[in-house]
Amino acid sequence: MSSQAHDPNCVFCKIIRREIPSATVLETDAAVAFLDIRPVNHGHVLLVPKPHHANLTDLPEPLAAHVASLLPKLCRAVRAATGADGFNVIVNNGRAAGQIINHGHWHIIPRFYNDSVNWPWPHGEYVGDELGQMRFRIERELNPPRGED
Amino acid sequence: MSSQAHDPNCVFCKIIRREIPSATVLETDAAVAFLDIRPVNHGHVLLVPKPHHANLTDLPEPLAAHVASLLPKLCRAVRAATGADGFNVIVNNGRAAGQIINHGHWHIIPRFYNDSVNWPWPHGEYVGDELGQMRFRIERELNPPRGED
Repeated sequence: MSSQAHDPNCVFCKIIRREIPSATVLETDAAVAFLDIRPVNHGHVLLVPKPHHANLTDLPEPLAAHVASLLPKLCRAVRAATGADGFNVIVNNGRAAGQIINHGHWHIIPRFYNDSVNWPWPHGEYVGDELGQMRFRIERELNPPRGED
Repeated sequence: MSSQAHDPNCVFCKIIRREIPSATVLETDAAVAFLDIRPVNHGHVLLVPKPHHANLTDLPEPLAAHVASLLPKLCRAVRAATGADGFNVIVNNGRAAGQIINHGHWHIIPRFYNDSVNWPWPHGEYVGDELGQMRFRIERELNPPRGED
């Protein structure tokens, strides 16, 4: 089951239910933000929807919207509190993408010039019609043809 | 000026105004999603709010909410179209965090077991009262004391 209100084996559900303590900085009816205790940099915050959903693909749209509506002020606060030069907002979805806790969550990671983080972005390319084909495949997933399957 | 409806020098504003072509896969009144032509992996999509804002700290909360409300279905479509094992959703804010185009945007990056992406996460720690102090500083930024400055 990837999506349910509460998973008794989930560490984030335990934090949300206050069964495990956390350094919470922000809480609403549907989301909570607390410090990651193993931070990439100090001030690294996790923003977590309260209902248990494995990742972004399972998140109801209104809940994704609510969580993201908290990002501007939370990011401003993290930047001001840490004096960061910038910050990454990251949601890892699935083991292949580095997700460790299977309760979807946003990382807010303060960044500094010359910090120890090194995340190189390889850049591939599209050859021939690969770009058009990829566009077609994604559009078709977003707008499946009616009456066909 | 970090925030305005349209920046004539911004490449994303030009794409949004159709002055530069793009492989668009989704469009609403306030946001557009198109393929990154230099993808980390094929199927790498950029989700971009139409109004020009430098990054997440400048984004109006309702616009952040609208953009994120598109993520679940867009991520499902990218995953299905690419057969990805997982995906990262990333917003880089500021040069120190790897931001290149100063018009805030979400990356949706399909990931595969054993792909060429290598993003190690260093893990620091908090010593003594550092965690409590950081929590206090972020909370104070979120809830500034009245009548003090």
